[in-house]
Amino acid sequence: MEYQVIDTQIAPDGRLEVLSKAEITKLLDTSHGGLYQLFRSCSLAVLNCGSGLDDGKELLERYKTFDISIIQRERGIKLDVKAAPASAFVDGVMIKGIQEHLFTVLRDILFVHGEIEENSQFDLNTTEGVSDAVFHILRNANLLKPQVNPNLVVCWGGHSISGIEYDYTKQVGYHLGLRGMDICTGCGPGAMKGPMKGATIGHAKQRIRHGRYLGITEPGIIAAEAPNPIVNDLVILPDIEKRLEAFVRIGHAIVVFPGGAGTAEEILYLLGILLHPDNAGLPFPLIFTGPESAKDYFLQIDQFIAGTLGEQARQRYQIIVNDPSLVAQEVLEGIKKVREFRKAKGDAYYFNWLLKIDAEFQKPFDPTHENMRNLELHKNQEPHLLAANLRRAFSGVVAGNVKDQGIRAIEKYGHFEITGDIAIMEAMDALLSSFVAHNRMKLPGKAYTPCYRVIK
Amino acid sequence: MEYQVIDTQIAPDGRLEVLSKAEITKLLDTSHGGLYQLFRSCSLAVLNCGSGLDDGKELLERYKTFDISIIQRERGIKLDVKAAPASAFVDGVMIKGIQEHLFTVLRDILFVHGEIEENSQFDLNTTEGVSDAVFHILRNANLLKPQVNPNLVVCWGGHSISGIEYDYTKQVGYHLGLRGMDICTGCGPGAMKGPMKGATIGHAKQRIRHGRYLGITEPGIIAAEAPNPIVNDLVILPDIEKRLEAFVRIGHAIVVFPGGAGTAEEILYLLGILLHPDNAGLPFPLIFTGPESAKDYFLQIDQFIAGTLGEQARQRYQIIVNDPSLVAQEVLEGIKKVREFRKAKGDAYYFNWLLKIDAEFQKPFDPTHENMRNLELHKNQEPHLLAANLRRAFSGVVAGNVKDQGIRAIEKYGHFEITGDIAIMEAMDALLSSFVAHNRMKLPGKAYTPCYRVIK
Amino acid sequence: MEYQVIDTQIAPDGRLEVLSKAEITKLLDTSHGGLYQLFRSCSLAVLNCGSGLDDGKELLERYKTFDISIIQRERGIKLDVKAAPASAFVDGVMIKGIQEHLFTVLRDILFVHGEIEENSQFDLNTTEGVSDAVFHILRNANLLKPQVNPNLVVCWGGHSISGIEYDYTKQVGYHLGLRGMDICTGCGPGAMKGPMKGATIGHAKQRIRHGRYLGITEPGIIAAEAPNPIVNDLVILPDIEKRLEAFVRIGHAIVVFPGGAGTAEEILYLLGILLHPDNAGLPFPLIFTGPESAKDYFLQIDQFIAGTLGEQARQRYQIIVNDPSLVAQEVLEGIKKVREFRKAKGDAYYFNWLLKIDAEFQKPFDPTHENMRNLELHKNQEPHLLAANLRRAFSGVVAGNVKDQGIRAIEKYGHFEITGDIAIMEAMDALLSSFVAHNRMKLPGKAYTPCYRVIK
Amino acid sequence: MEYQVIDTQIAPDGRLEVLSKAEITKLLDTSHGGLYQLFRSCSLAVLNCGSGLDDGKELLERYKTFDISIIQRERGIKLDVKAAPASAFVDGVMIKGIQEHLFTVLRDILFVHGEIEENSQFDLNTTEGVSDAVFHILRNANLLKPQVNPNLVVCWGGHSISGIEYDYTKQVGYHLGLRGMDICTGCGPGAMKGPMKGATIGHAKQRIRHGRYLGITEPGIIAAEAPNPIVNDLVILPDIEKRLEAFVRIGHAIVVFPGGAGTAEEILYLLGILLHPDNAGLPFPLIFTGPESAKDYFLQIDQFIAGTLGEQARQRYQIIVNDPSLVAQEVLEGIKKVREFRKAKGDAYYFNWLLKIDAEFQKPFDPTHENMRNLELHKNQEPHLLAANLRRAFSGVVAGNVKDQGIRAIEKYGHFEITGDIAIMEAMDALLSSFVAHNRMKLPGKAYTPCYRVIK
Repeated sequence: MEYQVIDTQIAPDGRLEVLSKAEITKLLDTSHGGLYQLFRSCSLAVLNCGSGLDDGKELLERYKTFDISIIQRERGIKLDVKAAPASAFVDGVMIKGIQEHLFTVLRDILFVHGEIEENSQFDLNTTEGVSDAVFHILRNANLLKPQVNPNLVVCWGGHSISGIEYDYTKQVGYHLGLRGMDICTGCGPGAMKGPMKGATIGHAKQRIRHGRYLGITEPGIIAAEAPNPIVNDLVILPDIEKRLEAFVRIGHAIVVFPGGAGTAEEILYLLGILLHPDNAGLPFPLIFTGPESAKDYFLQIDQFIAGTLGEQARQRYQIIVNDPSLVAQEVLEGIKKVREFRKAKGDAYYFNWLLKIDAEFQKPFDPTHENMRNLELHKNQEPHLLAANLRRAFSGVVAGNVKDQGIRAIEKYGHFEITGDIAIMEAMDALLSSFVAHNRMKLPGKAYTPCYRVIK
Repeated sequence: MEYQVIDTQIAPDGRLEVLSKAEITKLLDTSHGGLYQLFRSCSLAVLNCGSGLDDGKELLERYKTFDISIIQRERGIKLDVKAAPASAFVDGVMIKGIQEHLFTVLRDILFVHGEIEENSQFDLNTTEGVSDAVFHILRNANLLKPQVNPNLVVCWGGHSISGIEYDYTKQVGYHLGLRGMDICTGCGPGAMKGPMKGATIGHAKQRIRHGRYLGITEPGIIAAEAPNPIVNDLVILPDIEKRLEAFVRIGHAIVVFPGGAGTAEEILYLLGILLHPDNAGLPFPLIFTGPESAKDYFLQIDQFIAGTLGEQARQRYQIIVNDPSLVAQEVLEGIKKVREFRKAKGDAYYFNWLLKIDAEFQKPFDPTHENMRNLELHKNQEPHLLAANLRRAFSGVVAGNVKDQGIRAIEKYGHFEITGDIAIMEAMDALLSSFVAHNRMKLPGKAYTPCYRVIK
Repeated sequence: MEYQVIDTQIAPDGRLEVLSKAEITKLLDTSHGGLYQLFRSCSLAVLNCGSGLDDGKELLERYKTFDISIIQRERGIKLDVKAAPASAFVDGVMIKGIQEHLFTVLRDILFVHGEIEENSQFDLNTTEGVSDAVFHILRNANLLKPQVNPNLVVCWGGHSISGIEYDYTKQVGYHLGLRGMDICTGCGPGAMKGPMKGATIGHAKQRIRHGRYLGITEPGIIAAEAPNPIVNDLVILPDIEKRLEAFVRIGHAIVVFPGGAGTAEEILYLLGILLHPDNAGLPFPLIFTGPESAKDYFLQIDQFIAGTLGEQARQRYQIIVNDPSLVAQEVLEGIKKVREFRKAKGDAYYFNWLLKIDAEFQKPFDPTHENMRNLELHKNQEPHLLAANLRRAFSGVVAGNVKDQGIRAIEKYGHFEITGDIAIMEAMDALLSSFVAHNRMKLPGKAYTPCYRVIK
Repeated sequence: MEYQVIDTQIAPDGRLEVLSKAEITKLLDTSHGGLYQLFRSCSLAVLNCGSGLDDGKELLERYKTFDISIIQRERGIKLDVKAAPASAFVDGVMIKGIQEHLFTVLRDILFVHGEIEENSQFDLNTTEGVSDAVFHILRNANLLKPQVNPNLVVCWGGHSISGIEYDYTKQVGYHLGLRGMDICTGCGPGAMKGPMKGATIGHAKQRIRHGRYLGITEPGIIAAEAPNPIVNDLVILPDIEKRLEAFVRIGHAIVVFPGGAGTAEEILYLLGILLHPDNAGLPFPLIFTGPESAKDYFLQIDQFIAGTLGEQARQRYQIIVNDPSLVAQEVLEGIKKVREFRKAKGDAYYFNWLLKIDAEFQKPFDPTHENMRNLELHKNQEPHLLAANLRRAFSGVVAGNVKDQGIRAIEKYGHFEITGDIAIMEAMDALLSSFVAHNRMKLPGKAYTPCYRVIK
């Protein structure tokens, strides 16, 4: 099959970029590949939004001739784009939001390389060093806004959801937008797009002209969950763990819609952190919600959590079925407490310094077959450590489903094998099977072939 | 039935109002009623948006205790609102867009009264005087933007349309918005809201922060077709004829979606004007469009026009079925010609001075039973005059359906009687019957009782 | 002598103008002369700023071929300017501030003609009608800002002052600007320019990017006291009395620097109003100030007031010598009281509705030889009426000195004769003689020939 | 003598700062002193502007109890300032421009420490590394504006100049401002302040609301030449050599007013660079200008250059006496050529990458007594290297005159000794003596005691 492509040159606008000679050289150095390849693949992902494709490997194969490079001009730099997916264009002109995203990719890849990795002040082997790096990446992306009251709602949920669920996420976004809340998501389709669309309408009605639609992503997932162009603040963290840390450090409340393995990963990550004894008194509004049809889904999640992490974990969230305006009201109520808490502690509104994140949740997990097989999935450990390991298991499933590297590994070595306590294995199996049954693993189109096997 | 109401005070914000003592006095003078009553009823209409009610008479009866008055404060005026419909509020605070609309009502009612009606420089008995008044009202509303390329697309269509049709209007709006077009409608629900919602998303993706969503209304229709809060530029013309003139003087292209009697009125108004010999060479893009399911509808409209105004009228429009991006492309193509024409003639982009509008289309038509009965609906006249009379017939039907005064007249005197050439009568009957059959006359809810009888 | 002139076309920018066909026609109608002549002469005055000429008659004679007309273009109007004074240009391009002023002239002349004079809602024979007209003109000029705390300081003083006095006015302006005050003057050179220059630097240091430098003028005086281009809000009232009313209605405090007959006129106008019994309790900060060298000047003014209006009038002002920062502090102190008073009374911050202005101060005074001779300059009347007549006497002197019409009348009929109580005549003679002695009557260059004779 | 001081807390506004925990810790660590001492002394310098003091050592001694620290608040950081010079305040509130400068100090000291010094990507031992560091510091300060045509005029000249010279610098600034030029200086008093004041008025008349008044300084000189509050873009480079590089990389033209040793240093620095063979064809507008009274001054400078660097150097500048508008026109003419050159070469408008700066001009020169004594001041070297050494000699004199460290060294070890070719020594002696004679070395007040001795 042939995919339509377009060549163009784009200049930054609004968020301009001024690069040094050294920076340009690094990005043009196609021989080494390192930085250039990363820049190229993330750029391609951004250009591919709205395509209905969630397969990082296939994306790269579809657009083999795609190329992007930097040109220095007297007024600033330009990007020279060759053989870009035609869906990023309207009547031959690239959608402005996508143009912005391309420059964001440029910014973040350069910054992480130049200012984080090569800078001795960040010791990425310490908890403080990792958090500091996350802080610097977010600050450089201009996402940390002082003088602003807490109003950032993180929305998690599947990229592959039903039409009814999608409409519901729009409704929730609309009611949040009407109340002046901004939205932050993982920036793909489905539950990551709906709340932003809804909030856009809510903001328009309230004359909020500078509503923020934040997308937080990382190079591995961006191809599968390309930022939709409504996202007007995008940031690319270097890996999934720093991406998750970014969500919980800058979000003031989290709303979870139905989703698949990725959503489960996110839930386990957050609950694992909240279960840490140091975070016992820290307010963190967390709401699971969906339309009537999603009631069973959340029942199942709730049972899984009860059966693995225990009753204590269940105290940390609230389930609301089919009531978008109640969700918005509860979010506001919860954020009010967050605000009081931060004020009392003198903690910043724009970055949750007080949240303790254990090194277990920061260390990048590489989902090799071996690592997946060796995960410690038993109850003989503190709940927050079990959560960390369960998180890794679901993370591996996501990689095997949609990420370029993961897909290639599965093709080569076969299923991931997940093993552990029988009770936990049964709970996982049930949950994963239901994700498969409800098409939550991948966008519809092809039949889903599991990338894992639960060994009971 | 009880309707929930809320009291509040609002201050202008963004578009501030500074009033003289004399102006405040006029609006507070509830004894005379004139200006105050007009201000009160339009304000109530604005507050009632989103209620699913399109009955001007019922609206006034529902909220009998509603009251609005002006308070002078040291920093400017405030509006004191009592017993306002609760749907205009979120968590007790009035939606900002609705607040703006209330101040717009204030502005236009005062301006039309103070600067147009009492000012000897406007002779409303002449064609030039009426056009000049329309110009001044629009300029005062800050709608005439110099230094801007033509990009204003007027969207006409029914307030009562199917879900599929509504989604289609959103799609068209989205594709227009992606191409930088602004939207102008009659500012009610249905086909008047969908294109704005779609364009809002299109504008967001293109980072157009100052997209314009114009609503043009008049005191008689506003209660039935309340401006939705996305409308960020609202203007209230004094009557239906000046409202129609405003549409065609400031719009650069017109897209017509399926609708009922009001939409038919608008089509006949525009075609009548375009058939005037003076307008023969004047470009005016006009596209009828709808989803697949609306194909028959436009066939019927097309036949009605062919059968009454003739083949010449059919040359003035284009019918596009189920292709939103083609609609947008054709609009752009048409506007390009408008731009070239205006540039060549030195005519303003922001006001179509060159369009000839005959006095027949400017004289306010009062749809009394007598006036309706005496309409000259025969072919023994020039097509543009027949169009003017047909326009009046449909205008009367709208009044009988949804306007306070019209509904009361029908209640008192029975059906309007419409009479004329048998061929024309049959065509009208067929058209009106199909509007009834497809629920295009009124919002669903109650069974529709026709307010007219076609005498064949 | 030849004066260098330049032709150009200018488009409005920032403050755009959209005109109707009828408005353009009125301004192009050079045959009748009325509106066109007014527009032309005010435009020429604006273009002549910075020329060191304060003679309205000579100005018109210098630039006989000057012409200005309106061109309608598709993006809005343009002004076509022919044979304009070269001093308004930098390297062939008209200074932007002067461009703005030309469009302001256009706006005000059209507005006053179209919306005030031809509008039956303004009865200019009543006190309320005049104040209402002043309000509407100021509102139309966008000078009435709601939601802003009182901070507008009117600075009065001579257009012809010494270098030391000029530097002092800059210092006062600087200290007012540092404290966030905006400046309003009669917008000519000397004491009307210095405070604006000083405030510009003060505002720059305080990062006040939208400091306001208001100029209030009228067609008779504009030629002699052309607005300097720092003025970023200009308004042209129809006559001197409405101009004076504008000053006292929108200013929150008044600072008077040394000056000549015009300054005396302003002082008498304001004291006359403040002496009205209705204004007894109304706070109105009024400070006379100048450098050490101006000490005698204010002594003389003080004595003149004591000798004519009496002790009561002296209670209304404060004299501060050579202390710019004290002036600024006292202004702030005074405005604080104004703010409290308005808040307590619910009066607008942006328009002093509560200030009573007697009809005697509103009626335009035409300084014919007969009117000047018949002025009632005796103590046999209430002080505020004596003030009104003294004001007229000085107004006549200003006309004879610098206004086109006045100069022509003096040339034709000889001196104005001023007569009255001997004590008053002696006080006037002393004051006027000292103005002459200190070059306060006219800009230096030619020897001053008095236009009046005081008959003792 | 007692100096009045004030305590306050200030929050960033407009240019907000978000700091990490680690950054705050570094700045609060008063024990080590390093970063904290630097931050404190630069802050004090900024607060001392307008005091008439140009002695870094005395400043620190005057305000021994001055203290500044950072407080973390929920909305962002605040600065807690204790015992700050009262001249930075108006009625107890710190001038906004000075508040901004304090946050700029914070930003630059942190950035240089954290992102430049600790970052392995900058090799400060290479020419490219130094230029890259300068680029990064300027970019971080938001001074590199893409999409803007060249319009930045660097003005050099003395901080201690006569009133007539000061007025002249204002006039030049005014004429540059009228032509849309922005101003960049070393940001102290005298010739560094006048052009900004003048340009402010010019910009106001041209309605340029975002005129830029850039100040470029370094920790050693800032105490003697505190940024005046008009400066709205301030940057602190780490040393004098990087400061000079910043001037020539971002300025599009340079205007030199009369000055003392510092001005001579700047002239020699620039001529030395322009004499490098690689820069032969590079356009770089350079104008020496002053009022009539400064004619001899420039004659002397001209002779000194002729006698040391030779005729070739004289081709690089133009001397204009007493003609501010001609200066502005020549600057524009020169910048036009710069623009064409950069466009042709594809070089950035905002950073002069193509200008070759030899390592000799980048290596920080430490003016110890030994280094001063060993300077190679003879003609037995290429002119651009001689220029480099002469530059160092004058740099040392500046340090001995006004910098804290320099003054202490002179107090301890006596005069610097400057030695070399007799002809060069005589020229230097003549020039330095004339600087002393005309009070150009230090602000008037105390008699000047030379810090050097020229050994002939």
